[in-house]
This record gives sequence, C-alpha cells and structure tokens, in this order.
Amino acid sequence: MMGKIICVGLGPGDPELMSVRADRLVRAAHNVAYFRKAGRSGQARRIVEGMLAPQAVEYPMEYPVTTEIAFDSATYNDVLARFYDDWAGRLADLAQTGDIVVLCEGDPFFYGSFMHLHVRLQGRCDVEVVPGITGMTGCWHATGVPMTWGDDVLSVLMGTLSEAELVRHMTGADALAIMKTGRNLPKVRRALASAGRLQDAWLVERGTMPGQRVARLTETTIDDCPYFAIVLVHGRGRRPVAVEAAAGAAA
Amino acid sequence: MMGKIICVGLGPGDPELMSVRADRLVRAAHNVAYFRKAGRSGQARRIVEGMLAPQAVEYPMEYPVTTEIAFDSATYNDVLARFYDDWAGRLADLAQTGDIVVLCEGDPFFYGSFMHLHVRLQGRCDVEVVPGITGMTGCWHATGVPMTWGDDVLSVLMGTLSEAELVRHMTGADALAIMKTGRNLPKVRRALASAGRLQDAWLVERGTMPGQRVARLTETTIDDCPYFAIVLVHGRGRRPVAVEAAAGAAA
Repeated sequence: MMGKIICVGLGPGDPELMSVRADRLVRAAHNVAYFRKAGRSGQARRIVEGMLAPQAVEYPMEYPVTTEIAFDSATYNDVLARFYDDWAGRLADLAQTGDIVVLCEGDPFFYGSFMHLHVRLQGRCDVEVVPGITGMTGCWHATGVPMTWGDDVLSVLMGTLSEAELVRHMTGADALAIMKTGRNLPKVRRALASAGRLQDAWLVERGTMPGQRVARLTETTIDDCPYFAIVLVHGRGRRPVAVEAAAGAAA
Repeated sequence: MMGKIICVGLGPGDPELMSVRADRLVRAAHNVAYFRKAGRSGQARRIVEGMLAPQAVEYPMEYPVTTEIAFDSATYNDVLARFYDDWAGRLADLAQTGDIVVLCEGDPFFYGSFMHLHVRLQGRCDVEVVPGITGMTGCWHATGVPMTWGDDVLSVLMGTLSEAELVRHMTGADALAIMKTGRNLPKVRRALASAGRLQDAWLVERGTMPGQRVARLTETTIDDCPYFAIVLVHGRGRRPVAVEAAAGAAA
C-alpha cells in the first residue's frame, strides 16, 4: 500500500507545545526522517527524545559538510540542491511501502528546510504538513511580554539582509523579529541603533527549551549569540487610524 | 489556596492543533473564561466544544454592545477599557479560590484580546500564558503553499492601516499577511494592486476549521469577506545577499 510523507511541525522546542496531532503522529511513526548537521544530534530529533516507538526506523538527513565551502556561495547552493534532490527521491521511494514522518522544528511552512523537499515531492507522492508553533512565538513568550497589539505592524527579518534594508524595515514597523543572527549580530545591532530601536531589543536563545536565555540585547556581548538566537522588539499597541485622528483633533 | 490565571492559546481553530499542554489544561479546567460578542457562542468557546469537564463553570466575557457607538471612536475605547478593568478585577478575585483557564484563539501574545487583561493583572495574581499556533499560520497551511523561504521578509499588517502605509509595507516586504480585513477589503485590494501584489494574493476564511475557504483574492467579491478573513501573499524565497551579488556579477 502506498504511504504518504507527513511533515510534522514540532513547535519551538518544549515537547508539550507540540500539537495534539503532531504528538500522536510522532509517537505512532514507523519511519522518521529529520535534518541535522553531520555529527550533531539535531534540534528536531532532540525535541522528540523519549517519544519515538522502540521499533521506529530513523533516517537522519545530514546536511553536506559546510566548512570548506562558503555558506552563501553558488557552489554551496548546488551542493544543497543535490542533497535535497537525493532525499526527496529516497523519501518518495520509501513512501511506496508506508507513511514517513518528517520532523521539523517550529512551523514547516515558515522558513523550514522541509519546503525544499516539499517542492521536489509535488506529484510524486502524497504529502501532508502539520502546522506548528513558530520558534519566534516561543521566543516572544519567553520574554513574558505581549508581542503585537491593536494595529501594530510586525516585520520578520533575517540578519542576512543588508544593513540598509534592515534599517528601512526596522524604521517602518512597530514590532520586529530578527532571525539568522549569529555572525550578523553586529550588523543587526547597528541597524537597530540607526532605527532608534536598540534600547527596546531582546535576545532570546533556546526559547521554551532547557537553557532558555532572555536578555536585553544591549546587555549581551557579540560572542554570546548562536545563529538561531532571535532578536525581538515588541510592538507598542498602535491605535486604529480613526482613533489617532480623533485624538489629534481633540488635542 | 491562591490560584492563578492561565491563558491558553487554542491555535487556529482545529482542536487537534491545540498544544498538548493546552489540551490538558482545557480538559482539566474547573473555571473557564472566554471573550465573545453578546448573543454569540464565541470562536474560542466553539474550538473547545466537547472538551470541557461537565462540572466546569463558564464565564463568558461579553464585549460591550457596539452597534450604537463607532468601533474606532474614543468613546468606544473608554467603554472597552472599563470592560477590561471590570473583568480583570473579577478574574483576580476568582483566582483567590483556584485556577482559572482563559481561552484565547490563536496565540495570546499575537494581537490577542487577553493582553488587555494581562497588563491589568500584573502584580495582582499569578498569570501564565500558553503559546498557540497563530491564526495566520493556520491560514497559510490552508493554502498548501510554503509562506516564507530563505531571506524572505514577512510583514504582518492590519487592514485598518491607511492605504499609503499598506502600499509602503506591501512594496517593501516579500511575504504578506493582512488581518482585520472585512470592510477594509476594498482598500486592501487597492493597496495590493498599487504594490503590484494583487495577482499573488489569497483570501483565507476559517483556516483549519469546518467551512474553510481558500480563494484567489481576485476571484472573490467584497461582500464575501468577514472581518477575520486573512489575506496572504506568499514569499518567493529571496536568496541570501551574497548569492544575489554573485549571480549579479556572473550575469
């Protein structure tokens, strides 16, 4: 019987923040695939530690070694494309014999690596995707402060953008979530300072997970920042346009 | 014994997309509070239908009637402020005797009404907030298309913003999620057209819920659009800056 590929969003890290559906699928899975760096246990696999059935077969999908090729080079992109081609083929073949659960941190459709398989699997086998709580949602909860109110504009940015682009978006929006920080953190800090938002910025590491760390960005040092830490600036609750206009008229 | 107030994010609508923790808290709750419009069952309450314990005591927090006062007037804001003051007081009193679970659609810290209670409850009793999958996440899954890739910038906008602001954000970002549509839809459509994004826009109603509807925005009529429908434009997978530069140099 033909199976399907089910990509399960695991949420921000705390296993209890997995959806009821994700929890059930993970525990019942016979075949489990997940991305990880070579030689590492992998974040997705760590989240489900203790949940997999003893007879589950695991397929770690190990990213090609990246130390000898620049991460942002065209060559690296080619290597990655072949890696995704290869795994899409292997998973499609495996699905001939039964369901495969693919583990994915956060929400699979929100900057998830699974999308590179998703696009390659179209028309080859059934694919189902289970939403998850995004990592940034876990991080803003870690701060204990509401993220967006009223008419706030939220801008989600990558630290890999140019400084000018970062400044432009940071100036225009009310709430900010900046991912892929790491070595981009000095640039992110300069951009936040230019946009007048540095004093309001938080750095959140391992949100909802053991070792969670929440700090004012101004109180952290550059060496502190892993690639997956998220920088957050909370919205201030922008009021609806008509109320602002009325308040302006009354003033 | 002093209890606490636990605001539980219920996710986008499908009860199976509630987190494991939310599911357990809802089923075990003795006191359950939720917002709703007067005379309506309320979206949060509908999501947990069939899950509450038979002996659970319910506290519907009914928004003040809004038909005779303009929604965006200063008077309406005063009426709402008194409503939140009142319920914050009642819940804080109730918490003297035991835990209260407050139901909240989506994620409570992402444009959730609970934040108006959260700010008023500080220092009065223990408050815990359980993250949920946001409504917009449920909606982008309803389209079956990944929302953001690579270095995409996501902008979350309210339809209540001015047309000029909408156009500015729509032009600058890669992926767009526009909420509070309803009567603002004609303005949202004009802004999308000005930004050259109208052909890529989707309208999603009741994402992950019974009666889910997904349509190209250009194929819908204005009368169709409830206030809580979400307009989405998917990102196109912006490539990292250095790769773009390399591609430009090679061209």
